[in-house]
Amino acid sequence: MKKLKLGVIGTGRIGKVHIATLVQSVPQAEVVAIADINPDAANEVAKAFGISNVFDNYSEVINHPEVDAVVICSPTDTHAQYIVAAAKAGKHIFCEKPVDLSLEVIQDALDAVAKAGVKLMVGFNRRFDPNFSKLKQLVGDDKIGNPHILKITSRDPAPPPAEYSAVSGGMFMDMTIHDFDMARYIVGSEVTEVYTNATVLVDPEIGKAGDVDTAIITLTFANGAIGVIDNSRKAVYGYDQRVEIFGSKGMACADNNYPENHRYYAADGVHSSLPLNFFMDRYLEAYANEMKIFCDSVVNDLPLPVSGIDGLKSVAIALAAKKSYLENRKVLISEILKPVQE
Amino acid sequence: MKKLKLGVIGTGRIGKVHIATLVQSVPQAEVVAIADINPDAANEVAKAFGISNVFDNYSEVINHPEVDAVVICSPTDTHAQYIVAAAKAGKHIFCEKPVDLSLEVIQDALDAVAKAGVKLMVGFNRRFDPNFSKLKQLVGDDKIGNPHILKITSRDPAPPPAEYSAVSGGMFMDMTIHDFDMARYIVGSEVTEVYTNATVLVDPEIGKAGDVDTAIITLTFANGAIGVIDNSRKAVYGYDQRVEIFGSKGMACADNNYPENHRYYAADGVHSSLPLNFFMDRYLEAYANEMKIFCDSVVNDLPLPVSGIDGLKSVAIALAAKKSYLENRKVLISEILKPVQE
Amino acid sequence: MKKLKLGVIGTGRIGKVHIATLVQSVPQAEVVAIADINPDAANEVAKAFGISNVFDNYSEVINHPEVDAVVICSPTDTHAQYIVAAAKAGKHIFCEKPVDLSLEVIQDALDAVAKAGVKLMVGFNRRFDPNFSKLKQLVGDDKIGNPHILKITSRDPAPPPAEYSAVSGGMFMDMTIHDFDMARYIVGSEVTEVYTNATVLVDPEIGKAGDVDTAIITLTFANGAIGVIDNSRKAVYGYDQRVEIFGSKGMACADNNYPENHRYYAADGVHSSLPLNFFMDRYLEAYANEMKIFCDSVVNDLPLPVSGIDGLKSVAIALAAKKSYLENRKVLISEILKPVQE
Amino acid sequence: MKKLKLGVIGTGRIGKVHIATLVQSVPQAEVVAIADINPDAANEVAKAFGISNVFDNYSEVINHPEVDAVVICSPTDTHAQYIVAAAKAGKHIFCEKPVDLSLEVIQDALDAVAKAGVKLMVGFNRRFDPNFSKLKQLVGDDKIGNPHILKITSRDPAPPPAEYSAVSGGMFMDMTIHDFDMARYIVGSEVTEVYTNATVLVDPEIGKAGDVDTAIITLTFANGAIGVIDNSRKAVYGYDQRVEIFGSKGMACADNNYPENHRYYAADGVHSSLPLNFFMDRYLEAYANEMKIFCDSVVNDLPLPVSGIDGLKSVAIALAAKKSYLENRKVLISEILKPVQE
Repeated sequence: MKKLKLGVIGTGRIGKVHIATLVQSVPQAEVVAIADINPDAANEVAKAFGISNVFDNYSEVINHPEVDAVVICSPTDTHAQYIVAAAKAGKHIFCEKPVDLSLEVIQDALDAVAKAGVKLMVGFNRRFDPNFSKLKQLVGDDKIGNPHILKITSRDPAPPPAEYSAVSGGMFMDMTIHDFDMARYIVGSEVTEVYTNATVLVDPEIGKAGDVDTAIITLTFANGAIGVIDNSRKAVYGYDQRVEIFGSKGMACADNNYPENHRYYAADGVHSSLPLNFFMDRYLEAYANEMKIFCDSVVNDLPLPVSGIDGLKSVAIALAAKKSYLENRKVLISEILKPVQE
Repeated sequence: MKKLKLGVIGTGRIGKVHIATLVQSVPQAEVVAIADINPDAANEVAKAFGISNVFDNYSEVINHPEVDAVVICSPTDTHAQYIVAAAKAGKHIFCEKPVDLSLEVIQDALDAVAKAGVKLMVGFNRRFDPNFSKLKQLVGDDKIGNPHILKITSRDPAPPPAEYSAVSGGMFMDMTIHDFDMARYIVGSEVTEVYTNATVLVDPEIGKAGDVDTAIITLTFANGAIGVIDNSRKAVYGYDQRVEIFGSKGMACADNNYPENHRYYAADGVHSSLPLNFFMDRYLEAYANEMKIFCDSVVNDLPLPVSGIDGLKSVAIALAAKKSYLENRKVLISEILKPVQE
Repeated sequence: MKKLKLGVIGTGRIGKVHIATLVQSVPQAEVVAIADINPDAANEVAKAFGISNVFDNYSEVINHPEVDAVVICSPTDTHAQYIVAAAKAGKHIFCEKPVDLSLEVIQDALDAVAKAGVKLMVGFNRRFDPNFSKLKQLVGDDKIGNPHILKITSRDPAPPPAEYSAVSGGMFMDMTIHDFDMARYIVGSEVTEVYTNATVLVDPEIGKAGDVDTAIITLTFANGAIGVIDNSRKAVYGYDQRVEIFGSKGMACADNNYPENHRYYAADGVHSSLPLNFFMDRYLEAYANEMKIFCDSVVNDLPLPVSGIDGLKSVAIALAAKKSYLENRKVLISEILKPVQE
Repeated sequence: MKKLKLGVIGTGRIGKVHIATLVQSVPQAEVVAIADINPDAANEVAKAFGISNVFDNYSEVINHPEVDAVVICSPTDTHAQYIVAAAKAGKHIFCEKPVDLSLEVIQDALDAVAKAGVKLMVGFNRRFDPNFSKLKQLVGDDKIGNPHILKITSRDPAPPPAEYSAVSGGMFMDMTIHDFDMARYIVGSEVTEVYTNATVLVDPEIGKAGDVDTAIITLTFANGAIGVIDNSRKAVYGYDQRVEIFGSKGMACADNNYPENHRYYAADGVHSSLPLNFFMDRYLEAYANEMKIFCDSVVNDLPLPVSGIDGLKSVAIALAAKKSYLENRKVLISEILKPVQE
């Protein structure tokens, strides 16, 4: 079996998830080098998974002679820099989302990737969730007909620390960005207009930090469909991730996943368990699927299922959503992203 | 038992439903007179339900000495006139929605009702659906906490005839108006802002007639909550009526009702029945509940659960939704409805 | 429209349900006479439903010249006598189940019916429940293939008064008898063998009265299928009525019905409402359907969907179940019911 | 971390599942040796999982000086022999079910284990399925109250090859044995009586081989509860694994697991996916949980959750079920298993 030798940059939470998948579940993958600015973290991971080459500097992974492809799991503000460096080194790239908060920076990174002729996949893991994949398949099989209405409910169990918003770019950029990608993926058409109705209902501190915690975002698609995303930073009953697509031939919806499916009938009602609590539980299978398909696509020179352009587009929609909120009006994506870039 | 003697104006589809409920299921009601401009229709109903006094003119019902209360089931453009006449005759009034398409006309009718000191209830039957009543109860019992996000999905199985839109005032006025009332009812707060994203995806003829058939409408409420309604004139799988309310303490949702609850497991998947097909099936219990509570409230001099102001407000929101669609911008309810009227 | 003029004997709980259906929902029915040994009860019902002829003696209903058909809702020990009397008077008959506790008495009644050439339908209302009708339809449409396994769960919310068992014939005769009929109806084949595993777990007083309150009853059918019924006199969560049929081509199951279908997601789990509490709620539609089809079949001279033989067979199975319990062994129906009777 | 060094005997389907879990998901486990009578199979597994010591003979694994515990995944007729050998070698033991088809052979193996003072766990993996674990927890937390009725539905997607029955001991011994263990586990009491209603409806060849393919088995428990298991060798819609426990305080049921949870609403009905197809999919998590708890219990000297006695009891119930079928009568477990052995 032809093997893909990978280097992983960043061994925090998501880095460890990807390493575990690559080591345990992807026979054609071999993790040959990892790096983290925290050497202790990197060494611990290296030991647990039997990885030989451990560094505290990203460039040693990228430039390691054995490394065919790099998996970038470092903070967002380093993504573009590492993509460019990896492209220049002729390495294929998997990068966590978002690529960057700036469209210009992303465009420069994509240009470097194009120039180098390497492959780049952006980590929109939810596309590989079996529920949403099934919806996409029904759309692809024309079971829905022409899409008319898309509905995404996406609510987190608890808000991130207040200081996170400043770094992350805010709720639209760190949380809704997944929903913007999902919207494009399911409908199969580009978003052209965005209207945001957002507010602070969960925690006033979030508002003081300049962010919102509750939002309803209306979308218009190039194919005529319309859509809506509703977000909350705090659902007391856990992680709420549902998608519904309605069209001329039918409707398909995907519910949450649950740790088990018991029902308990007592004198005071029927009771069952809450949904899986957060993304590490809900999307574990999606993360594994995503890494498998990345390795398989690179090894067999197949098109990657999520491109750099997908990474760019979702950031553009997030910027439009923010602008709509700030200016209290509908915003066209063409105000944000010049057509020439597409 | 103290009885309420009623006269019913209009013996079409909804008129017959109300008469059947009053005759068969409301012991304290007695239908003493009915009228329809079509005498054959009225006579047939009178015979089926054993009603003695049949007229082809509304005023004979309103002015019939035995009649304590009138139930107005005639076309929308006659509602206000009949309300005023009934009020002047000192009769209590149940009127189908919408009261009228014009806020001024409605206001005049409400003034006449107030001056006469009679009771007026508007027929927002969905408030009496057991599913939505349960959601309202959970909100009232503080099980939801502060409401944050309201979601209403409301889709019809098939569009009305093209010519209907002209008479009805269009989709926002004949269909979404129920959802606007439901929004105010469930959230327990007034709508202050409306943004409409609407389009024609079902049938171009609807567009030619100046109406829309698919819409996502975003709402802002006075208490800070936000909401979204999605509408389609054509769901091939039938009548789709769902509501979800999300707040600081939890979330409650109400699904569709089904004719029966079997599931069939075959080699090609699991199959079950479609939802109840249209409002006469889905809301049969709601119609009956509404008529019972109207009679009970009048007989026992209790406050009516849906007021004339409720009728006015839902029309104002519908007008704002239409204006938002036409002007492609967010519209404030205060642009439509002057605060003094509240 | 050709009308069926009915007389109802017994105006207790089930009698009132049938009268209400006949008066309010069966246009081709007219209740012309009723009787109850308690004249006050009969008079109250007569007044509520506008029935002219009220008696305290069954024979006056049966022999009333206007009466075409009688509906027997009196206690079980009077059924056979009234059937015979009605048959002799040439009246069609609807009789509540069970026809009697003695096979000989039933057989004599059926003989009288046959001799008189009148129609007789036994009140196995559950056959007309939309859930179970749908299962029957799937079997009839060969969606299940050859039936292999039938499962019926049938549990009451609370046991009847201790003294009721003596009169009723015990749990197998007053409760499971419905399930025996359902088993024959769904599988479409006769029961040939019964094995009962029964016990007293709910209330020792029931055991002292010689009855059981918890049972698992295994059935064998003539077509080779096997089946199981589980019963309890006390489900604290309410009335539990489910059926499942499994065969060579698939499986279909029918769940309980619920008063509404909300789900409430709170921090401690997901909660929903209990099933409809007891037979008057759960089977209201079934009772109405049964009465409509009885009237329709008599008026239009169609075969009745539940025959006197059906009434006989279910009693035979109940007797076999009891014998199996008492003798702690499998019992053949042929030990109870001589083949010649079929 | 203290590590448990394991040797695995048998590298067929289930052996590979256990090895993958041990290598990938149990940090405290190390697989140091494996054996299979087919050396190619063993070598392939060794290579895939980086295992150094590969043998074609079980005794080399058992007697390997590094091996602390053996995992026996070889054919049933070798289990007892390997248990005895491992016990004599002082190694802890995990053995797939059933231990053996003969109670005497099992008893001898258990005696050897007891004499050697080693730990033995039998592989009833379903106890570690999250759905059934949740039911057990509800029973343990007294949410069910006194158990009254247990229901287990257990149906396979397709029958095993005809020749398998001879080796396996037949359906009760190779399939229902899991349900017998589940019954004891959920109810928390011993089975005392068995009545079997079994037949051949799936494939006449199975009957010719002396086995059955469809069965309903009624159980009585020492604590007074009663129960029923229904089995089929062929459910065309896939693997059907459900459990329900009903008691004085409530009822809990566990449904099947599904690959994803979409629902598709089309004009012809609502459709969803079939359950996970067979045990390797449905019980993957259960297999992993079982192996983790075995390692953890041995390393930390904790009691094992499934004992050798559990292995013995389930075989005894299977023998009683077969005897009941053959003799067409209820069989007491005390006829099969002398009380002294407990």
